[in-house]
Amino acid sequence: MDQGRILSDLRERVGASAFHRWVGIEVEEAEEGTVTVSLQATDHHRNLIGTMHGGLVATLGDTAAGLAVRTMLEPTRRGATIQLGVHYLAPGGAGVVRARGRVVRMGRSVAYAEADVVDEDEVLLARVTATFALSED
Amino acid sequence: MDQGRILSDLRERVGASAFHRWVGIEVEEAEEGTVTVSLQATDHHRNLIGTMHGGLVATLGDTAAGLAVRTMLEPTRRGATIQLGVHYLAPGGAGVVRARGRVVRMGRSVAYAEADVVDEDEVLLARVTATFALSED
Amino acid sequence: MDQGRILSDLRERVGASAFHRWVGIEVEEAEEGTVTVSLQATDHHRNLIGTMHGGLVATLGDTAAGLAVRTMLEPTRRGATIQLGVHYLAPGGAGVVRARGRVVRMGRSVAYAEADVVDEDEVLLARVTATFALSED
Amino acid sequence: MDQGRILSDLRERVGASAFHRWVGIEVEEAEEGTVTVSLQATDHHRNLIGTMHGGLVATLGDTAAGLAVRTMLEPTRRGATIQLGVHYLAPGGAGVVRARGRVVRMGRSVAYAEADVVDEDEVLLARVTATFALSED
Repeated sequence: MDQGRILSDLRERVGASAFHRWVGIEVEEAEEGTVTVSLQATDHHRNLIGTMHGGLVATLGDTAAGLAVRTMLEPTRRGATIQLGVHYLAPGGAGVVRARGRVVRMGRSVAYAEADVVDEDEVLLARVTATFALSED
Repeated sequence: MDQGRILSDLRERVGASAFHRWVGIEVEEAEEGTVTVSLQATDHHRNLIGTMHGGLVATLGDTAAGLAVRTMLEPTRRGATIQLGVHYLAPGGAGVVRARGRVVRMGRSVAYAEADVVDEDEVLLARVTATFALSED
Repeated sequence: MDQGRILSDLRERVGASAFHRWVGIEVEEAEEGTVTVSLQATDHHRNLIGTMHGGLVATLGDTAAGLAVRTMLEPTRRGATIQLGVHYLAPGGAGVVRARGRVVRMGRSVAYAEADVVDEDEVLLARVTATFALSED
Repeated sequence: MDQGRILSDLRERVGASAFHRWVGIEVEEAEEGTVTVSLQATDHHRNLIGTMHGGLVATLGDTAAGLAVRTMLEPTRRGATIQLGVHYLAPGGAGVVRARGRVVRMGRSVAYAEADVVDEDEVLLARVTATFALSED
């Protein structure tokens, strides 16, 4: 599949998800095996101390990793997150926050992907690891 | 601190967080070392296949575990999540979803807590592990 | 399968593994879904500061969780660890160290199990989470 | 500290650990923030199906990550693993297995490091994440 097609497919998918529209996650870039998503941080994304809530950082990382797996799956197959690991390295909260996901291993029934969550200045906010169970849709 | 005071303190804290109000997370129960939070699932909490997004499940678990740690900290101290691990065991999406957090170990500079995320029928949706760095506010 | 049979099967399996004999891991108890293994700590299990090395604690937890999954698999199937998570809670190093594994979820292609690693006084040394890919042998 | 000194310090440290001598782990390379350790796989490192046991892979990763943190600590301070995460990506078992650890974040009380475990042909056997609590010795 060509790159433009991959990107438009993922945007359609994310646009069809009520959750992702509500959160405000957008797909910025995509090619086979790697996907970048982003979120413009606003007040309701922040916790009591003014930083982006860790659950949102996890959400961004999971989304980027999961879409990266999506780019390598047949249309009739799907991946479901079975394990998510997040290491928080720096607080974020202002401007655009990005997650860059990449597939590290595709197996027949399991995939493993990672994501880096960074802020506008490319400060690494979190490292994310994710395991996906693959199955027919 | 008596139990009613713990609960009202946490409710005040969560109520003051723009993020938690936006998501719709409420504190149901709290005593020293254990906290239950809940979320009434609605359309925008669901992903493309109609189940609660894994990022929200992670958010619930992180919130329950973090508040459980909060109940055991002096008022001048705070805990920040440095590591979050989620194992997804069943899809959820309808009705009320709850996360029950409990502190497993409180150290001087690090705490470890866990949370179970369950649906209305007590089906276990996810197991969550979380590590917190403790510091003066 | 009756309980005595489960235990003798696992002991045969562990006895046939050069790795487990070398480390000194033994199967203490087993029933469907739960397995306890143990190790008598000796000098070469300890690191520079005199505590059992974290890699051994991980090994014990992985073994207990993996054997617990084994008790629930058809003889022609096998489980391979694809993800292991360990939270170290207290240092150990003297006497017998035990790991108690239990299956939390058995799927068709993936299983999730946990283990508690404890010392002789039941002090919790570590909590272990493990994901297994299941396949035909 | 110059590079030769870092390497000789780590070798002395690993040589003084009964555990590491018993397992057969050696320090190959070291500079500030990155350390490579290796192990010549032999029969007793293998499990029933002839591959290096996952506990050893975890041990190698933990050792490489922990020593990488060690290179960035004052001599009077120490790091203790509080969390270890391993994703197994391919089976290993023959020849030399290496783990390359690198520090991703050094804080005052907590450090985060990662390690890649590879075989002789640079096949990635596992990705390891590790969190360390830092304290005075």
